[in-house]
Amino acid sequence: MREATNRRIVLASRPTGEPTPADFRLENAAVPEPGDGQILLRTLWLSLDPYMRGRMSAARSYAKPVEVGEVMVGGTVNEVVASRHPGFAEGDIVQSYAGWQDYALSDGAGLRKLDPSLAPVSTALGVLGMPGLTAYTGLMNIGQPKPGETVAVAAATGPVGSMVGQIAKLKGCRAIGIAGGPEKCRYLVEELGFDAAIDHRSSDMAARLKEACPNGIDVYFENVGGAVWDAVFPLLNDFARIPVCGLVAHYNDTGLPQGPDRLPQLMSAVLARRLTLRGFIVGDFASQAEEFYREVSPWLREGRIKYREDVVEGLENAPEALIGLLKGNNFGKLLVRVKR
Amino acid sequence: MREATNRRIVLASRPTGEPTPADFRLENAAVPEPGDGQILLRTLWLSLDPYMRGRMSAARSYAKPVEVGEVMVGGTVNEVVASRHPGFAEGDIVQSYAGWQDYALSDGAGLRKLDPSLAPVSTALGVLGMPGLTAYTGLMNIGQPKPGETVAVAAATGPVGSMVGQIAKLKGCRAIGIAGGPEKCRYLVEELGFDAAIDHRSSDMAARLKEACPNGIDVYFENVGGAVWDAVFPLLNDFARIPVCGLVAHYNDTGLPQGPDRLPQLMSAVLARRLTLRGFIVGDFASQAEEFYREVSPWLREGRIKYREDVVEGLENAPEALIGLLKGNNFGKLLVRVKR
Repeated sequence: MREATNRRIVLASRPTGEPTPADFRLENAAVPEPGDGQILLRTLWLSLDPYMRGRMSAARSYAKPVEVGEVMVGGTVNEVVASRHPGFAEGDIVQSYAGWQDYALSDGAGLRKLDPSLAPVSTALGVLGMPGLTAYTGLMNIGQPKPGETVAVAAATGPVGSMVGQIAKLKGCRAIGIAGGPEKCRYLVEELGFDAAIDHRSSDMAARLKEACPNGIDVYFENVGGAVWDAVFPLLNDFARIPVCGLVAHYNDTGLPQGPDRLPQLMSAVLARRLTLRGFIVGDFASQAEEFYREVSPWLREGRIKYREDVVEGLENAPEALIGLLKGNNFGKLLVRVKR
Repeated sequence: MREATNRRIVLASRPTGEPTPADFRLENAAVPEPGDGQILLRTLWLSLDPYMRGRMSAARSYAKPVEVGEVMVGGTVNEVVASRHPGFAEGDIVQSYAGWQDYALSDGAGLRKLDPSLAPVSTALGVLGMPGLTAYTGLMNIGQPKPGETVAVAAATGPVGSMVGQIAKLKGCRAIGIAGGPEKCRYLVEELGFDAAIDHRSSDMAARLKEACPNGIDVYFENVGGAVWDAVFPLLNDFARIPVCGLVAHYNDTGLPQGPDRLPQLMSAVLARRLTLRGFIVGDFASQAEEFYREVSPWLREGRIKYREDVVEGLENAPEALIGLLKGNNFGKLLVRVKR
């Protein structure tokens, strides 16, 4: 049944440093009517992801920012509630980018139809969606893990990090996860089969990481930056590969930190240890999506890949949930159940 | 004719910051006698290269340091003056790593025989030697230049930089060189065919570089670091590749420079612009030497690749010449004519 209004959350102001609830505004709009060739989508699930912090800023990045007053961007799972498009029927479930709102129109471009009998549709936003593809393509193309190597990943219980570690294990590597708090660390080792997990809140993180990596680190999948990078850096082996996927520790930075300037030190290590640092976003490897589904779907069906969702109820709670995500408060793939 | 003594220059002390003449010591030793299976090499040419500064330090790097009291390492061209080895005859000319001395023994391992009729033998230390191979393999494997792209290189009149730019031109790219002083800049454009050359001593280097790169920079071949990197960094395009080959501006650093700390800024750019930074040394691509000779030798014969040598007379002048090299005083491939 269709509701009377389309609730939508827009960017109210560009944050300085940490976003606050006041940077978002919940608006009520009319539910739009599909024109010829269009479908009306109702949002079931909204994905919350660290990249959203970047879109709230005007700084140069890999995608254009959300304008103040615009609906916040976001990946979604939607139900088709009305269709004037020959390719879609009422009741179809699709993965879309409808953003932070109840309803959206679409001309069908960029939608992916989901089969609810194959996997819960919410996985299209996580393990079988953008985060999973990010982990898979970044690790395989840039990390290039070889059996017996050590692969470290931060934000390791998140949807990207948990996939990186599990794929690394399936590829014959030693997987080391870094996460916040003993519960997450226990989960990594006991549930996901990581070889070790390091609590980045512990005062001796660097020493523990070193202990867990007696042969150094060959692949560091960078989601975080900050203190985790500082602990990883001395352990990077000759020829280590560093897919740079995210830097959530820096997304709220308002300027350059105090010195000394460690840029020359990094460049010297890149040279002396022949490191490879390469940034990427999932769209750079979009052509590998089919290969990803083909390789990862069986792993999921066979229980060789596990995933965890952290579900927030109600669109109105999305701003607080995103603010918490940037602090590492979520445990698993953060989703908002939008449909009331 | 053989001399009575073997002059050799040893590392007298590890420098702090810039090396000084006192960090080297000229010694006289007996000329050694070849044993069974050995040859006696007499040094004709000694190559001086920036990597030598690294070997003078005890810091972790890609090769073990020269010990205090040991002969300084270095690539050489030698004449076989006595042979008790079936593979070598008196009068053979070889490329070797005999170091900073008149004579050395060898069991033949790692020697490359040179044919003086094909090219002047000194080129085995430059355009057809380690620097040429460094330029070729770093540019082709990491830089991966595509026709129409902009390739920038610093220390551009040096043996590596001049090859990078000339190969980039042969591959259909726009080549921008950065060098010290108007004479070197003129040489780059008028003699080597670079599209533009920027004097890094000019006060407005960054503005001139920007002007010379209206489409940004796709490949930056890093030989230098420091102020040149700072000028290049804002111009790097999305998906730019940065082979990190040398950092001569930092080799004399004694600690981290003053802040702010630009490490997070670099990592953020790696992510947002999907940069690839990769360090390498020529040995990492040793298996491509044959391909290099095959592709580059005809270019040299046909005059499509030019080179320039900066010859210092006398082994005793090698320390001052290396100190000058680290300041950019040489103009072209720096060689010491050792044979008196």
